[in-house]
Amino acid sequence: MYEELRKSVCDANLMLPVYDLVTLTWGNVSGIDRDTGVVAIKPSGVEYTELTPDKIVLLNLDGKIFKDSLNPSSDTPTHLELYRSFKGIKGICHTHSAYATTWAQACREIPCLGTTAADYFYGNVPVTDVMTKEQIETDYELNTGKVIVERFKDIDPMQMPAVLVANHGPFTWGDNAAKAVETAMVLEQVAKMALGTLLINPEQKEITKVLLDKHYLRKHGENAYYGQN
Amino acid sequence: MYEELRKSVCDANLMLPVYDLVTLTWGNVSGIDRDTGVVAIKPSGVEYTELTPDKIVLLNLDGKIFKDSLNPSSDTPTHLELYRSFKGIKGICHTHSAYATTWAQACREIPCLGTTAADYFYGNVPVTDVMTKEQIETDYELNTGKVIVERFKDIDPMQMPAVLVANHGPFTWGDNAAKAVETAMVLEQVAKMALGTLLINPEQKEITKVLLDKHYLRKHGENAYYGQN
Amino acid sequence: MYEELRKSVCDANLMLPVYDLVTLTWGNVSGIDRDTGVVAIKPSGVEYTELTPDKIVLLNLDGKIFKDSLNPSSDTPTHLELYRSFKGIKGICHTHSAYATTWAQACREIPCLGTTAADYFYGNVPVTDVMTKEQIETDYELNTGKVIVERFKDIDPMQMPAVLVANHGPFTWGDNAAKAVETAMVLEQVAKMALGTLLINPEQKEITKVLLDKHYLRKHGENAYYGQN
Amino acid sequence: MYEELRKSVCDANLMLPVYDLVTLTWGNVSGIDRDTGVVAIKPSGVEYTELTPDKIVLLNLDGKIFKDSLNPSSDTPTHLELYRSFKGIKGICHTHSAYATTWAQACREIPCLGTTAADYFYGNVPVTDVMTKEQIETDYELNTGKVIVERFKDIDPMQMPAVLVANHGPFTWGDNAAKAVETAMVLEQVAKMALGTLLINPEQKEITKVLLDKHYLRKHGENAYYGQN
Repeated sequence: MYEELRKSVCDANLMLPVYDLVTLTWGNVSGIDRDTGVVAIKPSGVEYTELTPDKIVLLNLDGKIFKDSLNPSSDTPTHLELYRSFKGIKGICHTHSAYATTWAQACREIPCLGTTAADYFYGNVPVTDVMTKEQIETDYELNTGKVIVERFKDIDPMQMPAVLVANHGPFTWGDNAAKAVETAMVLEQVAKMALGTLLINPEQKEITKVLLDKHYLRKHGENAYYGQN
Repeated sequence: MYEELRKSVCDANLMLPVYDLVTLTWGNVSGIDRDTGVVAIKPSGVEYTELTPDKIVLLNLDGKIFKDSLNPSSDTPTHLELYRSFKGIKGICHTHSAYATTWAQACREIPCLGTTAADYFYGNVPVTDVMTKEQIETDYELNTGKVIVERFKDIDPMQMPAVLVANHGPFTWGDNAAKAVETAMVLEQVAKMALGTLLINPEQKEITKVLLDKHYLRKHGENAYYGQN
Repeated sequence: MYEELRKSVCDANLMLPVYDLVTLTWGNVSGIDRDTGVVAIKPSGVEYTELTPDKIVLLNLDGKIFKDSLNPSSDTPTHLELYRSFKGIKGICHTHSAYATTWAQACREIPCLGTTAADYFYGNVPVTDVMTKEQIETDYELNTGKVIVERFKDIDPMQMPAVLVANHGPFTWGDNAAKAVETAMVLEQVAKMALGTLLINPEQKEITKVLLDKHYLRKHGENAYYGQN
Repeated sequence: MYEELRKSVCDANLMLPVYDLVTLTWGNVSGIDRDTGVVAIKPSGVEYTELTPDKIVLLNLDGKIFKDSLNPSSDTPTHLELYRSFKGIKGICHTHSAYATTWAQACREIPCLGTTAADYFYGNVPVTDVMTKEQIETDYELNTGKVIVERFKDIDPMQMPAVLVANHGPFTWGDNAAKAVETAMVLEQVAKMALGTLLINPEQKEITKVLLDKHYLRKHGENAYYGQN
């Protein structure tokens, strides 16, 4: 059931070690079938070398797990909150990739310092507030989703497909599971180069709005002219 | 004799180059059979490409080597002191992995700056005191173990499976040899991200106790809910 | 038609992932047949794993594309401007390689801090001015070429085969497409080492003119004595 | 003729890309037969993928090349000066490896900050003086050897098998060509960790003489007890 969704989510999870975005089992990718509201996600604590489509867990947007499933990723409530709030997204990726996590640990947004970032992210990559005692103690994973959504109250998630959870690490999303993983990989490169840039020039400011518009909009939106139509 | 122990210790040693934790022969892993008190450890100066289970050295907790053995790792007295003092551990790993050693050389503990660290280490990863002239000149390797044990007089080694020996490098431990190596690999990632975090934000403080508890305890202890039971 | 040119340009593009200079499709290499003025360049947005010589796009120096071609790289107008202005070059490479892009994002030229750089670049690797609103809004890619050419008004491109476009990344060039890629790879190493050098010693100055002359001229120019004639 | 020497020198050169110590052809290794004074060295500008024992160049300590040879490495006069002055060494390696070169470019010796360094280098790894105009303009490569020898007037090259040539990069040496390459690899690790250590703690000082003695002498000298005799 939902073989195609499961396979695409499995394949996307298996890209994490290929792109060197995970250590051990520190990452998870999900996808959603928006017509039925069925979500597919990595099982908790399963090694990537042992991951097959039939182990991918199916559940609905309320968190009800299909019978005979493994335990889903412990971060599942975060994924579900994002799917419920960001209606346009169909895949989510969470990693502890080294450089993006480094920025998350520093509790700093990643400034948009070049066209590499501008090609994917329409502005600085935001960081959430540090979570409160109450948010951590009860429904922690759900509240992780809520602090992300709160951070996006004035940001369009379709133009900013990434966030850093303070003290924790990145979540990225996109049109499907594979795209969410690709964005996680881009974010890692952008995070690495941003750190280096500020080491060379601590005063470096974000690129101008006009350059940001040029690059973001030549790859996205109705007048995009990058690629083969 | 002790074929299974030897094989597990050999396999764990061979994971060091796979995880990119060693250069040349700069690392060693041991394991112990707690029922008999027999310790198995890497022989000194043997290349990983030539390491086989039959070359793993067997000795007891007093350092008495089984006959017809190779010389054990020169760090053996450190391992034995840890096994004698930390009764719950069954595997030990020592490396000179780049980032963990960098922190050890800086004589600084690694602050717990994010949930990646909190998933494995219940607080800051401690660094020992700099060893004294007397400790170095006589029974150096034994005293290396003693300064570690001294550093843990108020720390539970079961909740903090790693230490940095000042001016030297990391030791990690766990339920078995393989687990000690896994922890060495996690420590390396944590050390790398901690350095980057402080480069971005030199004022960054440790995560809160409540977040540390949440992450450490969701993977460890009786109420853990990560993985497939 | 132009099979040899297309193959050499395809091969050079395929060296980008081998040298770890590109993520996804963030790079493009071109070559020119100076006798006919025909330029061959990577198609836009095509994965390196799917790139074959027949997909390489042919066009002339005015940008007229041979019929039945894919869309050329969106950076094509930049390449063409460089070929029109720098008459001696026959291959161009553009990447977003991590360290060179980091310097470009910092809007800083890369100081010539050692003989590794001096062997390839006759002085500091220049960075362009930040582009103006007008340059970005209309004919952006063409103007990217123009700001490079403007930056070289007192620099010989045959002695300085690289530039950093501010806020963006590096362009390199040479005698053919393969040589342009090789220079991109050297630039990446030089950029990495320059960052490290200034972290160790923020006051470090460029090498002397006499050492620069010695190294650059022993590999280039009529009295070169490096290699096998 | 001298097949064994040539093969050992060829093999040692081929370890440079394996250890990730060279980019393109930026490195060279030599060996000497002390009985006959015959030196074998890499030919200039030859790719590692095309290097075979028969291409290794033979010459004597005065620089006289055996007939029908390729051109030797342009750094040959430096190697010869070191063989003439440091009578105990039998292999030399020169690279532009990233971190060691970074320190050379910073014109700073590498402080001995930990036991990893102390196991191989008996103190700080020295850096030469910046070369003068006269030293560069005439007999540059020979003078590179002379500034190294000058720097070692109070240092025993048998206890300090490495040097950084200011503005340039490292030379290492040892009992044979393979050992010189191994030391180059160790130096690279030590250089990387020293940079990180000072980023974490800019005030960090060298390890004590007693710890240096302990580590260096447990691997070297008559009372060494590391390895299998």
